Amino acid sequence: MSRTTGVEALLEEYDAYLHVGDGADSDLYYLTEFSVPDSVVYLYTTEGSTLVLSSLEFERARKEARVDRVRNTSEYLSGDRRGDPEARLHLLNSLLGDRDVEAVAVPRGFSVWLADGLRDKGYRVDSVDSPVEDARRSKDDGEIAKIQKAQEATEAGLEKAEGMLAAAEERGGKLYLDDEVLTAERVKTEIEVALLHRRCHLEDVIVACGEGGADPHWRGEGPLKAGEPVIVDIFPRHDSGYHADTTRTWVAGEPSGEVEEAFDVTVEAMEAAFEVLEEGAGVSGEEVHDAVCDVYESYGHGTTREDATEGFVHSTGHGVGLDVHEPPRLSEGGGELRSGDVVTVEPGLYYQSWGGVRVEDLLVVRENDFENLTEYPVALRPVSSR
Amino acid sequence: MSRTTGVEALLEEYDAYLHVGDGADSDLYYLTEFSVPDSVVYLYTTEGSTLVLSSLEFERARKEARVDRVRNTSEYLSGDRRGDPEARLHLLNSLLGDRDVEAVAVPRGFSVWLADGLRDKGYRVDSVDSPVEDARRSKDDGEIAKIQKAQEATEAGLEKAEGMLAAAEERGGKLYLDDEVLTAERVKTEIEVALLHRRCHLEDVIVACGEGGADPHWRGEGPLKAGEPVIVDIFPRHDSGYHADTTRTWVAGEPSGEVEEAFDVTVEAMEAAFEVLEEGAGVSGEEVHDAVCDVYESYGHGTTREDATEGFVHSTGHGVGLDVHEPPRLSEGGGELRSGDVVTVEPGLYYQSWGGVRVEDLLVVRENDFENLTEYPVALRPVSSR
Repeated sequence: MSRTTGVEALLEEYDAYLHVGDGADSDLYYLTEFSVPDSVVYLYTTEGSTLVLSSLEFERARKEARVDRVRNTSEYLSGDRRGDPEARLHLLNSLLGDRDVEAVAVPRGFSVWLADGLRDKGYRVDSVDSPVEDARRSKDDGEIAKIQKAQEATEAGLEKAEGMLAAAEERGGKLYLDDEVLTAERVKTEIEVALLHRRCHLEDVIVACGEGGADPHWRGEGPLKAGEPVIVDIFPRHDSGYHADTTRTWVAGEPSGEVEEAFDVTVEAMEAAFEVLEEGAGVSGEEVHDAVCDVYESYGHGTTREDATEGFVHSTGHGVGLDVHEPPRLSEGGGELRSGDVVTVEPGLYYQSWGGVRVEDLLVVRENDFENLTEYPVALRPVSSR
Repeated sequence: MSRTTGVEALLEEYDAYLHVGDGADSDLYYLTEFSVPDSVVYLYTTEGSTLVLSSLEFERARKEARVDRVRNTSEYLSGDRRGDPEARLHLLNSLLGDRDVEAVAVPRGFSVWLADGLRDKGYRVDSVDSPVEDARRSKDDGEIAKIQKAQEATEAGLEKAEGMLAAAEERGGKLYLDDEVLTAERVKTEIEVALLHRRCHLEDVIVACGEGGADPHWRGEGPLKAGEPVIVDIFPRHDSGYHADTTRTWVAGEPSGEVEEAFDVTVEAMEAAFEVLEEGAGVSGEEVHDAVCDVYESYGHGTTREDATEGFVHSTGHGVGLDVHEPPRLSEGGGELRSGDVVTVEPGLYYQSWGGVRVEDLLVVRENDFENLTEYPVALRPVSSR
C-alpha cells in the first residue's frame, strides 16, 4: 500500500480529493512529507498531486515535497491576501476549474465555510473518511526508525526523572534535591532539556504526584512528596514528526500497601495484555483491553467495562505515529490490530484517596507476535542510575 | 468588551453558537480559559455557556473553566466512544435538542461533516466569522503581562545566541565554539533550553545563516559561517498560552558591504514604522507597511508593493497573542490598528546571492502612541554579554 492508495481509490467516485491544512495536519504531512507553518492546499486528481503554497515556501517545497507539482499562490491571487478567506475560496475555484473538476471529496474536518462556498459555485462537495488512515496505521521501517528515535529520547527523559527521585532526600514528608524542594516543575524542565538534546519537543509532560494523580490527564505541579506515587508520562514529538509515548510510576521513600498492590496488579495487567498481543496481527484492540480488565476486576478494581469512576478508568492503549493519539484503539469496540500498528499498552489505577499508578510501553504489532520498543525497566522504587 | 460580547451578538440571529475544538484552538481557549488535549464541545445559548468533555477532564474543567456549566460526555454517550465521529454527531444532536435550538452559528473552520450531519437532522447551520476576533485583538493588562513573560524568555534566548556568536572563533571561514563547529542546531538547542527554564515552548526557531536565509521561512541548519548574516527569530509560547516574537541578525566576523548596507536600511525602515505607530490607534496596518516600503524603495530595494521576488518580500508585521500569527496585519490592505493590538514590526531584506537580514520588535498599540515590549539592543556585531 502506497501513501496515496486511499486517495487514488476516491477517484472512482470523485474528480478530486481536496485538502486544506497546515503543519499541524498529520494527514497532509503524511501525503506530502513536507511541513509548513501556514495553510496550504493539496489537490489530487487523475493528473496526480498538486501542492499550492505561498512564495515564502515555494522553493523549499519544490525541493522537498513529495508531490507531482508545486504551484505558487501568486499564480491565483495578486498581492498579499494570505489569511483572507475569500481569497482562499477564489484560489480553490480557480484550481478546480482549471482541471474540470465537478465532484470533490474533502476530509470530514474540512471547513464548512469553504465547502459551502464551493457548493454555491456549483461543485458537489462530499466529506469522506480520511483516505490515509489505513496507510498511516501500517508503519514501515523508516517510520519505525523515527519512532525509535523519539523512544530513545523518551527513555533518556525517564532516566533523568528516575535519577532525580532516587537522589532526593526526605525532610518532613517533602523531597529535596541539592537542598532545594524537588518540584514537578524541576523534574519537567530536566526531562525537557534531556529531550531537546535528542531533537524532541514536548507539548506537555506529566509529572503527577499524590492525590491529583487520580485524574489521569492532570499534568502535575508543586512539591513532590515522599511515599506517594509519581507518574511520569513522556510523549514527545521528534523533529521527524513522529512521536513516542511511555510512562513509569515511582515512589521515593516507602509506598503504602495499597499503592504497592496497585502497582503489582498493574504490572500483572500489562503482562496479560502482552500475552494476547503475542498472537500478533488479527487480535482485536478490545481483546487486549479485556485481558487488562479481567486482571483488574479479579482483584476487585472497577474498570471501564463497568463505567467505574475509580480503578481502571481509561482505555488500554492507542496508536502512536504522526499523532500521539491515532488509530487503532485498544479499548471497548477496538477492532483488529494489523502488522505495523504502533500502539501503547498503558494499564493504570486511579483512586481519589491516594492518586494513581500507570505503566506504559510502546510496541509494534507484527504478523505473529509483537516487538516492544520500550527497554526501560519497570520498578516502583527509583534507582539512581540505569 | 467582554470575551463573550461577540458570541452574545450572534444570538440576535441564531439560537446558539456551537464550537468544537481542542487545546490547539485559540478561540476556544479564549472563551473558556481552559485547555484540553482532546476535542470538546462549547455551546452558547440564551442560557449561557456549556462545555461538554470526557470524564477524564470533567473535574478539572469544573474547577478551572470559565463557563456557566460543565457537562460530562457520558451524559450523552455510553461507553468509550471517544474519537467516533457518529458519536460526536449524536452528542451534538442531543445537546441542541435539549435546548430547543433550531438555527446554529458555527465558526468558518467547523467540520463540514458535522455541519452536514446536523443539517440532515433539520438544523439550520451557518458558518460565521470568529465572534471573538475583535475581543482577542484588544489585549488587557493580564494578557500583556503574559506576553511580557514570553518576551522576557525570548530575549534570554537572543542573549544566549548572541553570546555564542560573539564567543565563536573563525577557522577557515567556519565558526568554532569550545573547539567544536558552531552549528545552527547547537544554537537552537541552547535557545530552547534557555526558554524552557522560563516556561516557554518553541514549536520551531529560526537560526538561518548565509544564502539559505534568502527564504524568510527557512529554519536554518548546519555550520554557521564567519562574515555571513545569521538571522535568529524566536517565537515561543509561554505556558500561559500567549506568544512573543522577536528577531535579530548578527554577523560574526566581518560583514560584506552589502550586508551592512542592508542592515542599516532595515534599521531605518523600522524607525520609519515606529514614526507612524507613534500616532497610536487609528493608523492603518497599510500605512505602517507603506512607511517601511518607502524607505526600502528609496534605496532601490524591491518590495511587496512591486511584487518583488528579492528585497523586502513579506509583510511588515502581524498580531501576536494566543496565536503567533493573528489579526491585525501590517501589510497591503491592513486595516486600522486599535488600542491593545500587540503586533510585530519586522522589516527585512532577502537576496539569493547572500541571504537575509531581519530585525523584529514586539509592541503594543496604545491610544496615542505605542509601547515597545522589546528591550533587546539592535546591532549587527554580536557582543558577548548584554
